[in-house]
Amino acid sequence: AKVFKVAVLPGDGIGPEVMAEALQVLDAVEKKYDVKFERTHANVGGAGIDNEGKALPETTVNICKAADAILFGSVGGPKWETLPPEEQPERGALLPLRKIFGLYANLRPAIIFPSLTGASSLKEEVIAGGFNILVIRELTGGIYFSQPKGIEGTGRERVGVDTMRYSVPEIERITHVAFQAARKRGKKVCSIDKANVLSSSVLWREIVTGIAKEYPDVELSHMYVDNAAMQLVKWPKQFDVILCENMFGDILSDEAAMLTGSLGMLPSASLAEGTFGMYEPSGGSAPDIAGQGIANPIAQILSAGMMLRFSFGMVEAADAIDNAVAKVLEQGYRTRDIYQQKDGEKLVNTKEIGAAIIANL
Amino acid sequence: AKVFKVAVLPGDGIGPEVMAEALQVLDAVEKKYDVKFERTHANVGGAGIDNEGKALPETTVNICKAADAILFGSVGGPKWETLPPEEQPERGALLPLRKIFGLYANLRPAIIFPSLTGASSLKEEVIAGGFNILVIRELTGGIYFSQPKGIEGTGRERVGVDTMRYSVPEIERITHVAFQAARKRGKKVCSIDKANVLSSSVLWREIVTGIAKEYPDVELSHMYVDNAAMQLVKWPKQFDVILCENMFGDILSDEAAMLTGSLGMLPSASLAEGTFGMYEPSGGSAPDIAGQGIANPIAQILSAGMMLRFSFGMVEAADAIDNAVAKVLEQGYRTRDIYQQKDGEKLVNTKEIGAAIIANL
Ligand SMILES: CC(C)[C@H](C(=O)O)[C@@H](O)C(=O)O
Ligand SMILES: CC(C)[C@H](C(=O)O)[C@@H](O)C(=O)O
Repeated sequence: AKVFKVAVLPGDGIGPEVMAEALQVLDAVEKKYDVKFERTHANVGGAGIDNEGKALPETTVNICKAADAILFGSVGGPKWETLPPEEQPERGALLPLRKIFGLYANLRPAIIFPSLTGASSLKEEVIAGGFNILVIRELTGGIYFSQPKGIEGTGRERVGVDTMRYSVPEIERITHVAFQAARKRGKKVCSIDKANVLSSSVLWREIVTGIAKEYPDVELSHMYVDNAAMQLVKWPKQFDVILCENMFGDILSDEAAMLTGSLGMLPSASLAEGTFGMYEPSGGSAPDIAGQGIANPIAQILSAGMMLRFSFGMVEAADAIDNAVAKVLEQGYRTRDIYQQKDGEKLVNTKEIGAAIIANL
Repeated sequence: AKVFKVAVLPGDGIGPEVMAEALQVLDAVEKKYDVKFERTHANVGGAGIDNEGKALPETTVNICKAADAILFGSVGGPKWETLPPEEQPERGALLPLRKIFGLYANLRPAIIFPSLTGASSLKEEVIAGGFNILVIRELTGGIYFSQPKGIEGTGRERVGVDTMRYSVPEIERITHVAFQAARKRGKKVCSIDKANVLSSSVLWREIVTGIAKEYPDVELSHMYVDNAAMQLVKWPKQFDVILCENMFGDILSDEAAMLTGSLGMLPSASLAEGTFGMYEPSGGSAPDIAGQGIANPIAQILSAGMMLRFSFGMVEAADAIDNAVAKVLEQGYRTRDIYQQKDGEKLVNTKEIGAAIIANL
């Protein structure tokens, strides 16, 4: 059997509960396919702070380095909110992980399943039939990581400075990811920038336009970020793949995710060059419902599916997971967050929906 | 009679048509109140490019300098879209105007009138009763104007660079604008930043928090920009005044405006220290319907109202304009963009709704 090493980082809040279901799905995949997932658990986020003194402990980094992929839960909670920003679970774990492992390509699907359009705050006529957007966000450059960054001076003379910087190769590689993804789906890329104001966006637009010529089968359009924030609300179905630099991608991927109305359903992948990647739900650690066994594990399970697809090349098994989730939704299984009290819906808990998905595998 | 000098910059597309209605409203105000508006027309945007070779001609700047306020229409259109970004109507006119006149405080109301909730793409239950958000955006700092900015190097070695920089006084003055505005309305300020990633945001949050102590009657909260993009979609009514730096304000004010579903209704003000200000509709020049006499002039008329309120201290007349607009909507008058084919609605054109507003003054 093929062996893949997975670093399992459940994190905080609902992280461990939903991770447990994803791991059972991996068990089921092992039974069905000739594969073995060697898993090593490690602390991250608040769990890292509490047990090892920091959000991303050295031991965790080493476990991730020894792995073929990282399956990440979610981090954060009120307990750690008073720490300085750079020590907090989210920022203190996610930004170093992205940098250390060169996770430059963030894939964030915002999919609204036809059976779940009721959960969206958008009108039925705007989203009838659902929509399926893939936000591709550059994740290791731009204003997140460029220098200079800091607060200069003292007292009222202080100035806060951040730098948004993009090089040609940085733009090129994320653009290829977007076009390759578009090729396998709706064949449209909408590249987001603010080229009427930002120099980095002028370069971004030029490079994206050049690379588009290598993909004559994919249609490219450009949109200013402010307009994109509007168009997502107005008519989300106009989008297929949305390509963004880091900060714009942060904002627009969250807006798109919320438009689906079911954050608990959305996985994400953060890919390095080669096959290494980190996979995590788009939603947060939901401390308010943690420990009650009622969280929706679908985002975590679909994240495991993305891991099979992108890091392990197991397209068939990944498709099987996606299909099992879709079937379970059609069968009416609903955790509390997506329950709409409609006929045919069955309100279930974390373990029950996990078991239903495995039964459909 | 008191005399105020107004620089009138109609611009492109529907700009001249809707401006004509706003000017008639000013005529009506002159008749009712002891005031005279001395108006000088000037070219801006595409009209500036076509007639005087640039989006913001010197003559226009001088006319604005001699005025007490600028009433601005809207600029841009397909004709000028192939020009380099910095010469285009929008960027080439707006950014220099903001800089030259120190228009640091941008007030963008996103109001959904109870009678117009149908125009929003949000569900009725999310917006029942309407909402009323005021986005206060810093307009002369941050990543729009800070140095260094540009493209360094050549060929594939090129790097695009922008700088987001905020000083303490810059943050202080816009924060006071937000708290003073909140005092006159819902008494809540939600300050937007990305303090988990940006140093300028760390300073921003600290300064805003300090200034909030001078306004104990106003409640302050902080929200990350990505979360704000989600919360606007999820539950816009949670917001009263939203305070943003320049780029975040660009994105969120447009998102909020689109959530109302009636961009043609939304005015904006860009204020300098003292009483000088520029007033313009939030929507664009709508070249597709220009010249047909069907555009909605309400945003332009409400912009004139904001001018009376903020630059001329004519609170009573400004209230009268706001009330006249509200009444006309209650009476069922609708331009095409807000017509929903409901009982009691009267489909009217630009001039007719302008006349109805004046009749209600
Ligand atoms: C926690 C934060 C640093 C992070 C980001 O801004 O990238 C988060 O919002 C995300 O989108 O993954
Ligand atoms: C045209 C552009 C430069 C401008 C901006 O980004 O500020 C516009 O989008 C706005 O919001 O007024």
